[in-house]
Amino acid sequence: MRHHLAAALAMTLALAATSTRAAEDKPTPTAKELLAASKPSEWRTPDPANLLYMQLPQGRVVIELAPDFSPLHAQNIRTLVRQRYFDGLAIVRVQDNFVTQWDDPNGDDGGDKAKMHPLGNARATLPPEFTRPIDPKQAWTPLPDGDIHAPQVGFSEGFPVARDPAHDKEWLVQCYGMVGVGRDVPPDSGNGSALYAVIGQAPRRLDHNLAVAGRVLQGMQYLSALPRGTGPMGFYDKASERTAILSVKLASELPPAQREKIQVLRTDSPTFYALIDVARHGHNAFYPVPVGKLGICDIQAPVRVDGKPL
Amino acid sequence: MRHHLAAALAMTLALAATSTRAAEDKPTPTAKELLAASKPSEWRTPDPANLLYMQLPQGRVVIELAPDFSPLHAQNIRTLVRQRYFDGLAIVRVQDNFVTQWDDPNGDDGGDKAKMHPLGNARATLPPEFTRPIDPKQAWTPLPDGDIHAPQVGFSEGFPVARDPAHDKEWLVQCYGMVGVGRDVPPDSGNGSALYAVIGQAPRRLDHNLAVAGRVLQGMQYLSALPRGTGPMGFYDKASERTAILSVKLASELPPAQREKIQVLRTDSPTFYALIDVARHGHNAFYPVPVGKLGICDIQAPVRVDGKPL
Repeated sequence: MRHHLAAALAMTLALAATSTRAAEDKPTPTAKELLAASKPSEWRTPDPANLLYMQLPQGRVVIELAPDFSPLHAQNIRTLVRQRYFDGLAIVRVQDNFVTQWDDPNGDDGGDKAKMHPLGNARATLPPEFTRPIDPKQAWTPLPDGDIHAPQVGFSEGFPVARDPAHDKEWLVQCYGMVGVGRDVPPDSGNGSALYAVIGQAPRRLDHNLAVAGRVLQGMQYLSALPRGTGPMGFYDKASERTAILSVKLASELPPAQREKIQVLRTDSPTFYALIDVARHGHNAFYPVPVGKLGICDIQAPVRVDGKPL
Repeated sequence: MRHHLAAALAMTLALAATSTRAAEDKPTPTAKELLAASKPSEWRTPDPANLLYMQLPQGRVVIELAPDFSPLHAQNIRTLVRQRYFDGLAIVRVQDNFVTQWDDPNGDDGGDKAKMHPLGNARATLPPEFTRPIDPKQAWTPLPDGDIHAPQVGFSEGFPVARDPAHDKEWLVQCYGMVGVGRDVPPDSGNGSALYAVIGQAPRRLDHNLAVAGRVLQGMQYLSALPRGTGPMGFYDKASERTAILSVKLASELPPAQREKIQVLRTDSPTFYALIDVARHGHNAFYPVPVGKLGICDIQAPVRVDGKPL
């Protein structure tokens, strides 16, 4: 009983020729094999003005902003970053099966308000950007299996998206690894100075209530493996439990030679379509029964650094 | 911008009188309020023969077995526990957004097979128990919003369950916090000596391919916050990275005075029905837009210890 569950999990995503439960004995290709066969043109290099490098003591977290979905938030976050707003802040909250949140701890109860980092040129409030009108010019990779929350789900520009054509709305879905915007009670009170990453089952109840700023491309394990806070809602009880944010920089602030060689598989590429098919219908000796259906938070756009898949 | 996302998350689950988007200004009751108003008879005390106490250096994990769904696995796991099979084993794998797995590390490549813990009186193979015929005598709390994977979803005996009446099948769903049975390639090769807990988006592709043994009731944060393994599939590269399992005992092996005072809200209770309603239609100042729908992995049966909600 060596690797048990492990043994064949690398084979879990494998391509089937048919959409029915597999009768063939031959295992379908693996995700790894499909990625290895991908073409250079299927990968995009994110705009460095949209990439945040958040340096934690454990390592670097790379976040891609989604300015086509939340442009005012992207702009405000860039302004905050350039002012070094986040440097010296902290991860203040880790709630199990929900979110890891970073913020100015001096804004919390018991904090020293006089020491709060000033917003400077950034805006204190922003229009919510919880949803946006559907952009017909945007490439759209639909998932065919439905969703209990939205009429349509699929991928645009590497992000998981839900659509409601009858109301001409689309929005980024709060899947694992997505980065959302904390706020106070007023819907316009989010400005990007407090952000969170989803670390559990997708909390879809946030979808129309909180803006999504982007997605963690790299270093998610530094956000998901933090000790859970024992205070209400996963806030840390003691300042000593917080994880320091050493710095947040835009990739565009660094000389090109110092930037990560990070790429994201285009979600409108043949290889991503093949990965979707594989995730739905793949089978092999370990997984004889294909799952058949794929939810919007069950697959992510693959990332590679220096040409190596993460 | 004090608690941002935090401020009103306690209010996230709140009861609405209607199933449409809330027009009322009055916030709906919170989950906390509903639980506070629950009756003692709505809580069940799990059978101590079904409770595993897994002691890690960080603290205790309590797992409830599901013998009505996977009776042979429950029996085999009890046999292993009584033989002290798990004492001295380790958490060998933590794969981000997937599973934390514990096992005999000497069974892995590079391990000393001679030092493996013997299965003793436990069986080496078991009938898979991936699904079972629907038990009409079992209390069934349906979720009304559907599921992309199964014709019906709901709760039985505190566990998330999917049903396919046309094929007279039901099965435990691999939601966050559920405990599954690792195995080798043959479907009958799982025996409960290697187990895993789901720590991310529910991997529904496992549903018909791996048996579910139960659910983590307490201490999930000790399994979910572990450093992710950097080897293939999240296995730890070095033995020093593993977390030791100090002991696993059945609650029934301890004198009653030493057992946890743990209770689970009955999933066929009025309060659980109210919690479902609240999760679907709750709204308040922070969350003005009710999510409207609830997935099978979006709600869990609440647990309390010494009368205090976890």
